[in-house]
Amino acid sequence: MHSLGIDIGGTKTAMVLVDSEGRVVAEKIFPTARQNPEHQIELLKRHFEELTANRSLPKTIGIGIAGQIEKSTGTVLLAPNVQWKQVPIKQLIEKAFHLPTTVLNDVRAAAWGEWLYGAGKGCNDLLCLFFGTGVGGAFIDDGILREGASNTAGEIGHMVIDLNGRACSCGQRGCWETLVGGWGIAKMVQEGVRAEPERASLFLQLAQGNSETLSARHLFEAHKQGDPLAKQMIDRVSHAMVAGVASLINTFNPARLVVGGGVIEGYPEFLPLLRRDVPKACLEAAAHSFEIVESKLKGNAVAVGAAACAKELK
Amino acid sequence: MHSLGIDIGGTKTAMVLVDSEGRVVAEKIFPTARQNPEHQIELLKRHFEELTANRSLPKTIGIGIAGQIEKSTGTVLLAPNVQWKQVPIKQLIEKAFHLPTTVLNDVRAAAWGEWLYGAGKGCNDLLCLFFGTGVGGAFIDDGILREGASNTAGEIGHMVIDLNGRACSCGQRGCWETLVGGWGIAKMVQEGVRAEPERASLFLQLAQGNSETLSARHLFEAHKQGDPLAKQMIDRVSHAMVAGVASLINTFNPARLVVGGGVIEGYPEFLPLLRRDVPKACLEAAAHSFEIVESKLKGNAVAVGAAACAKELK
Repeated sequence: MHSLGIDIGGTKTAMVLVDSEGRVVAEKIFPTARQNPEHQIELLKRHFEELTANRSLPKTIGIGIAGQIEKSTGTVLLAPNVQWKQVPIKQLIEKAFHLPTTVLNDVRAAAWGEWLYGAGKGCNDLLCLFFGTGVGGAFIDDGILREGASNTAGEIGHMVIDLNGRACSCGQRGCWETLVGGWGIAKMVQEGVRAEPERASLFLQLAQGNSETLSARHLFEAHKQGDPLAKQMIDRVSHAMVAGVASLINTFNPARLVVGGGVIEGYPEFLPLLRRDVPKACLEAAAHSFEIVESKLKGNAVAVGAAACAKELK
Repeated sequence: MHSLGIDIGGTKTAMVLVDSEGRVVAEKIFPTARQNPEHQIELLKRHFEELTANRSLPKTIGIGIAGQIEKSTGTVLLAPNVQWKQVPIKQLIEKAFHLPTTVLNDVRAAAWGEWLYGAGKGCNDLLCLFFGTGVGGAFIDDGILREGASNTAGEIGHMVIDLNGRACSCGQRGCWETLVGGWGIAKMVQEGVRAEPERASLFLQLAQGNSETLSARHLFEAHKQGDPLAKQMIDRVSHAMVAGVASLINTFNPARLVVGGGVIEGYPEFLPLLRRDVPKACLEAAAHSFEIVESKLKGNAVAVGAAACAKELK
């Protein structure tokens, strides 16, 4: 049975047709119609026709979107990246496509994908961590993906790691994503460069003189070129990443940890670092019971996972 | 059906006979035979006979102990408080009492007690937090108490909250229990008093001049008497407690939070503080879905919970 997965991102939308083994049969990527759900539905219909021409039609649709979803109705309560508020996306899609539709948070969708078809396959005691612009996660406990009392479980980017640290968008200080999320790393790089411009010539060169455009990517590039300031910054990120992962191991005691997202893809050296340092940082009793693996579905995780989840929950 | 619950603590052992509704029918408290499991078994046998004279005999035994338990065998791998190492307690008890026996970590036992008979009753989406000398927790997810891949889930006292903070016994820095556990609070008080002796006259008076004996209890007493240094310290503890609880709410999104342990019993004002500040500190989406309640079983929680768990798992 085929299922359609749709990843509605802040700038682009990915649509994939997935077979019963989780393989991508066909895919399309197109710009998201931000602020305009009706236009987005039109776009989806048009691309759906092209995608499914001469192919088996899907029986279910899964949608992954960065935002807060009301599970019972499939309504997007708030999705800042696309500037949607109170959009009954499940209802709109079901009306347009006449197919049962499941709507879920993008991180949760990616976790479904990794669990059913990716690096978490076969593990019912799984923790998935995605280090993107923000940091999110999901955990599968005794074979059930934890959703929480109001469908927001897994917001591990907002664990406080540094009690008096940088202000976070959520209003707290020192949330994990202020230290290891893409936006937090960018802030650290920009501040570090402003504080020590005499040591930051490579950074400034990479950013063509404009320190405000510096991002995690520039950090990874500068580090690759052996820059000492970059080394220092990578050490700070590493320290916080290890501490947070160890905290989660102590809390959940999972059998496997799937780690992915843009920060990991941009600097894959975090993976061996976590494998080396997390067992030393976490409690002895938990240190030998887990493995750390890299996410497998990469850029397709949200769309494939949404398709998988829709099929599973049908 | 009656069940026997045994709480083997570092100084004393509590033995309770619990009826099918979780009510304590009879109880005994006696000193723990530290370092000597065989002697402890003898003590248990003697007190068991007295406890059950003229009463219905229990059908199961549950044992709660602060330490690391190998679930499959019921062996205490390590219990530092009683200085036990590799003690096959389940086997020893079953041989002595001829009753099916369950052995579990004391925090987990207390959580079972609160869940089945206490403040967590009826809630299948529950987080229990115990602030004692250390800090431990347990979570019930969709009606299952999470144990983890190697039976150590719930070690939330070792979430890093203050990345460059005080060294913890586990080897990390800034673990939650260094800030809100009894031992961490005691350290903070002792250091605070040494740093500002001129502001610490009440503390020194309460400790009869010996700042090394200062503990969380002295802090609560000094605060009750309106001491400004104590106020400052309570604020630090409160800050860390709110940040940690909010982190856990963001991570788990539970429907109910049961909060207990000596630190809460010693300073019950933490409870209204958490109720007031945690909803503001956690993510908006999770802020309205939970309630915070005080643990109900108090000092009996471990023994009653162990008895309850034994009955349940029989």
